[in-house]
Amino acid sequence: MNDTVNFPELYNRQLKEFEKSLENYVDSVEDQVLLEPLKYIMAGKGKRIRPMLVIFSNLAVGGRSEEAIAPAIAMEMLHNFTLAHDDIMDKSPLRRGKETIYKKWDEATAILLGDLMIGYAFGLLPNRETSTNNERILSRFNNALIEVCQGQALDMQFEQSESVSLEDYLKMIELKTAMLIEASCCIGALSGYGTKAEINSLIRYGNSLGLAFQIQDDLLDATAEFEKFGKRLGQDLLDGKKTFLILTAEKLAKEKDDVELIKNFYENKGVKEEDIPKMLEIYERLGVFQIAEQEIDNYTFKAKDSIKRLQDNIGKNMLYWIADLLNKRKT
Amino acid sequence: MNDTVNFPELYNRQLKEFEKSLENYVDSVEDQVLLEPLKYIMAGKGKRIRPMLVIFSNLAVGGRSEEAIAPAIAMEMLHNFTLAHDDIMDKSPLRRGKETIYKKWDEATAILLGDLMIGYAFGLLPNRETSTNNERILSRFNNALIEVCQGQALDMQFEQSESVSLEDYLKMIELKTAMLIEASCCIGALSGYGTKAEINSLIRYGNSLGLAFQIQDDLLDATAEFEKFGKRLGQDLLDGKKTFLILTAEKLAKEKDDVELIKNFYENKGVKEEDIPKMLEIYERLGVFQIAEQEIDNYTFKAKDSIKRLQDNIGKNMLYWIADLLNKRKT
Repeated sequence: MNDTVNFPELYNRQLKEFEKSLENYVDSVEDQVLLEPLKYIMAGKGKRIRPMLVIFSNLAVGGRSEEAIAPAIAMEMLHNFTLAHDDIMDKSPLRRGKETIYKKWDEATAILLGDLMIGYAFGLLPNRETSTNNERILSRFNNALIEVCQGQALDMQFEQSESVSLEDYLKMIELKTAMLIEASCCIGALSGYGTKAEINSLIRYGNSLGLAFQIQDDLLDATAEFEKFGKRLGQDLLDGKKTFLILTAEKLAKEKDDVELIKNFYENKGVKEEDIPKMLEIYERLGVFQIAEQEIDNYTFKAKDSIKRLQDNIGKNMLYWIADLLNKRKT
Repeated sequence: MNDTVNFPELYNRQLKEFEKSLENYVDSVEDQVLLEPLKYIMAGKGKRIRPMLVIFSNLAVGGRSEEAIAPAIAMEMLHNFTLAHDDIMDKSPLRRGKETIYKKWDEATAILLGDLMIGYAFGLLPNRETSTNNERILSRFNNALIEVCQGQALDMQFEQSESVSLEDYLKMIELKTAMLIEASCCIGALSGYGTKAEINSLIRYGNSLGLAFQIQDDLLDATAEFEKFGKRLGQDLLDGKKTFLILTAEKLAKEKDDVELIKNFYENKGVKEEDIPKMLEIYERLGVFQIAEQEIDNYTFKAKDSIKRLQDNIGKNMLYWIADLLNKRKT
């Protein structure tokens, strides 16, 4: 089957359909004040991973993709709500090369837009007429909202903290990043009326994929090319973010100078700009990047392994392909 | 019936029960990072108007108050979410004499706490097992979330605007203030399985009550005593808020000095601190306070009139009493 399928083409076709539905939805929103920032934030030309996971998880359990479109828009809306608010908290002026909402407008606009998007997202979820799984979808969705906030809260707490274990870190990224991805897969499967076993497989897939995704994000922050990523190399080091890289480096560092520099990072909640190259050199020398890559590979394998018992269809194979796509991403 | 009922006592008894349920709920929340600010914001010792409206609207349609408790907590949670976020946008350091969340903690905490409270609030709404009206309640609740954000967006837009009509103002306060109060009454009635006519009566009651409430708020900003209100007299004038008072003064002002001062308010998006007494004097002299009081009385009458056909019971009579209570409030 795989031999004859052109995955990038299929992905892009589905993506195009999704973009059209999203655009139609946004055009239908009646909002006097915040329509422009809403259009701006939702127009991002990304891979739309979360809604695509909703749709392909729906197909993987034998659903009809129409059932998945509205929840897919809701999930993308929820994701973008987190960006609007996180960018204020993290004081990020740019995201993927575009000005962030609070920067282009102001903080109040970014706060209100995010709040409003939660409302719009809930409004998109199925009711009892459109899906008999409506309550399970709603509850998953709401839990994802709660967990992503708890994850962001932990992340910010960790920035102020002088000791964070790798275990704490994994718990944090599970809440902050993996839960929205897991919920996307779960809601897709629910929209397509998957069996309990299918839903659980897709939940595990989403969870592992989400962990791989965040560690990859940490890695790219220190290795990606500035122009592609739209932000500075080593921004996390500057911000004092507790990432997979710094926690791993901390465990491995033996040389006095390395230990000292890493200690400074913890004590000063981040490094000075001029120390970034030194930190990257430590990562490189200690093999931190390879360890991260290995970890990403492990979670990617785990994700794919979770769905191996699903029926062999285009949805399942797209999910395999997406896992590899994310593993290889450069931005 | 009314002769024998001690309304303040009944209100306080119900309030005490509500506070206990709310406290139990908050104690049950599992949150590592934001539990302290959550407890802080939910511990406000106010009148809890919105949840009390949920409960008494439930009783007014012959419901059992147990059905109303969880939605009442949800409504109070939603209201407090708006406070956490509005206080950032309005840069208000104090609310009812207590430091606001963003001031006591920081902006990130206030943003995240608000977001999280939306999630907790949704989680409190009934599901199909606990109420057959669950979907109508959910949809009303979500619309209230959307509308309160749209109202706040309009309010902030008006601050920057040099011309706002009284009609625009009424539309704004309807969204920003009346919708949560209206939704409280509607959701209370839905939780108690009111008839269509009963629900509509309570919706109209809540709408008029909400408008009365906001005009009263505008009035109190210029007349209340600082110690009771926990904020400066004439703060709205300082902030450039378009209130019922300034819009009415603008219509009535004829004398050159008055017109000039009001024009300055519009052009400079507010007045300087030293001009507040002059503005209050203009309000006084033009009879703006009496006009506001008249308007509050009108809406209060309209609210009470809306529910006159409801069956005569303790719930309905409490709603009459609440309308008068708010009309006479000094803080």
